[in-house]
Amino acid sequence: MKEKRIFDYVRNVDSILIMNGGENQIDKTFFYLTEARSGIFEGSVLHVKPDKVTIITSALEEEAAKQTGFDVLVYSNTAERNEIIKNIFKDSVNVGLNYSSITLDLYKELVKLIPDKEFIDVSQSIDEARKIKEESELKNLREAAKIASDSFEDFTKTIKEGMTESELAANIVYAMMKNGASGESFSTIVAFGKNSAIPHYSPGKVKLKKNDFVLMDYGALYNKYCSDMTRTVVFGRASEEQRNIYETVKRAQHESKIAIKSGVNGKSIDKIARDIVNEHYPGKMMHSLGHGVGLDVHDHPALSPSFDFILKAGMVITDEPGIYITGTGGVRIEDDVIVKKEGYEEISTAPRDLIEL
Amino acid sequence: MKEKRIFDYVRNVDSILIMNGGENQIDKTFFYLTEARSGIFEGSVLHVKPDKVTIITSALEEEAAKQTGFDVLVYSNTAERNEIIKNIFKDSVNVGLNYSSITLDLYKELVKLIPDKEFIDVSQSIDEARKIKEESELKNLREAAKIASDSFEDFTKTIKEGMTESELAANIVYAMMKNGASGESFSTIVAFGKNSAIPHYSPGKVKLKKNDFVLMDYGALYNKYCSDMTRTVVFGRASEEQRNIYETVKRAQHESKIAIKSGVNGKSIDKIARDIVNEHYPGKMMHSLGHGVGLDVHDHPALSPSFDFILKAGMVITDEPGIYITGTGGVRIEDDVIVKKEGYEEISTAPRDLIEL
Repeated sequence: MKEKRIFDYVRNVDSILIMNGGENQIDKTFFYLTEARSGIFEGSVLHVKPDKVTIITSALEEEAAKQTGFDVLVYSNTAERNEIIKNIFKDSVNVGLNYSSITLDLYKELVKLIPDKEFIDVSQSIDEARKIKEESELKNLREAAKIASDSFEDFTKTIKEGMTESELAANIVYAMMKNGASGESFSTIVAFGKNSAIPHYSPGKVKLKKNDFVLMDYGALYNKYCSDMTRTVVFGRASEEQRNIYETVKRAQHESKIAIKSGVNGKSIDKIARDIVNEHYPGKMMHSLGHGVGLDVHDHPALSPSFDFILKAGMVITDEPGIYITGTGGVRIEDDVIVKKEGYEEISTAPRDLIEL
Repeated sequence: MKEKRIFDYVRNVDSILIMNGGENQIDKTFFYLTEARSGIFEGSVLHVKPDKVTIITSALEEEAAKQTGFDVLVYSNTAERNEIIKNIFKDSVNVGLNYSSITLDLYKELVKLIPDKEFIDVSQSIDEARKIKEESELKNLREAAKIASDSFEDFTKTIKEGMTESELAANIVYAMMKNGASGESFSTIVAFGKNSAIPHYSPGKVKLKKNDFVLMDYGALYNKYCSDMTRTVVFGRASEEQRNIYETVKRAQHESKIAIKSGVNGKSIDKIARDIVNEHYPGKMMHSLGHGVGLDVHDHPALSPSFDFILKAGMVITDEPGIYITGTGGVRIEDDVIVKKEGYEEISTAPRDLIEL
């Protein structure tokens, strides 16, 4: 039971309260704990004890909540919900909250609603638990990565001169959903030509021209777990500059990836890739090398020059170096890997050699 | 300028600080004010004065930020970002924050970083401003609704016996993206047969059978604005019960919709629909009648029995009654409308009569 795992990291907390806001303020910990397959659960609450989870939700989500097998308390309006919260937390003195997810207004509401409690930040304990994936989670993450990898071949076949970035993005999402994804895990990035120099570019009506870079950053959602993958191809023949940029990124990715294993500092993995980039293109990788992937596509932790953290077996992380030259274009190659005691397991499998279409 | 609109509702605030967290804690007010077309802007900050907006972001988003035309301050790590925040808010005493979006941990960081400030909740002022859409926003919302409506004909053609809910969801998203959407505005709901009784059902591997209800709740993203539409059809011949449920929902939607106009209380619109449902299927509409639509698919306000609010011209809302019978199935019909001084403008146009495929 995952609730037990969170309490392993927690001291002096009687119970934990997980509270969702609106659609943009859903705490994925809600789905981590309940494994609910359906439902959005806006405004819903979890009462978490080391050995028991209770879902407090509206009639709207009653059926979806009951399918989880956990106890469900149903309210028909906010006043009723608040009464349930008061009652179920009656015997708790120290209540854990996820400070990194709860919004300030909801916190202030809680302080008024149950003023006799001591609220304790358990966000780090939640991160610690969620960082190390269980076998059932790894299964979902492998499948999400496989869907993204398998789809690569399907949608690259559709790439043709004059198509727009948005059209290719449509083909990418379609291929993933046909291959079993419930959706995209984030807004698909497709950037042609010099647009590929903007790492978080949104696809538009720009048309594909001969010899353009085609950067595709996309991922699948599978049972609410994410994958996150990037491939960059050249539509036509790569120029010498394009080839140099590509091969540098490829080498940075390969060298950093083979260093991944339990016990290594993420900072030093970032440094391996960054040093290779900086040798040829100083300062042209202006983002971190990678991040955790899980229920959130940007899960904890981050592999970055400014963040110390030790890799552990069961973490799932991206390795995604990039080089971005304004006015020319950019290349990024990104894979998801599972950290192992000795080394890593590659779960993104699409080809990494330069493809000229 | 939209920043002016927020300050119209604000008292005693020198400047407003909008702060994004991770991918799940992006304040859409960031995009409301900047109109940034690209970028995710995790961890980015806005300094907002009545006549000036400054974007504080990382090198990763620099290009995307500069394309907005606003002033941009770039940091390469959190320490640098914090120095920029300290400096730019130096002359502000009362700083407005969006309490309904900022997470508790970020708030606590701010309190430490700029401890001499008085933080003031401006979330209601932001809601007030964002609730009433400007002409440029209405243009995006009309287009998002048009894409969803136009796509209906495209994907209903693909409905066939034995297809899975997930396959139909793929076809829906594909049709919208081919018609110009940058993506889905939320996870598409496709529910066959008795699954349609779960309002927030997630599509799975269930196969379509003769005479099933097919409930499709979906929406397009266009320039970051959302649409939200539901249609329910019968695959085959509708039974008498299916027809009765459908016609009741249709009548509830029609009667409530024609009552929409500036000055009316949303509660009374909800009541019109709910009374019609309750007459025949007591208690079987276990959700609110509708909600605002904008940059968030569940934007303020809500049309609900427990919430007083007066409709105003320029609001965009959904009207979406439903009836859900566990074990049998459910029907929901949902449209987006713009509230006008006299009446409303219908921006979702797909057919509402019962379709038997």
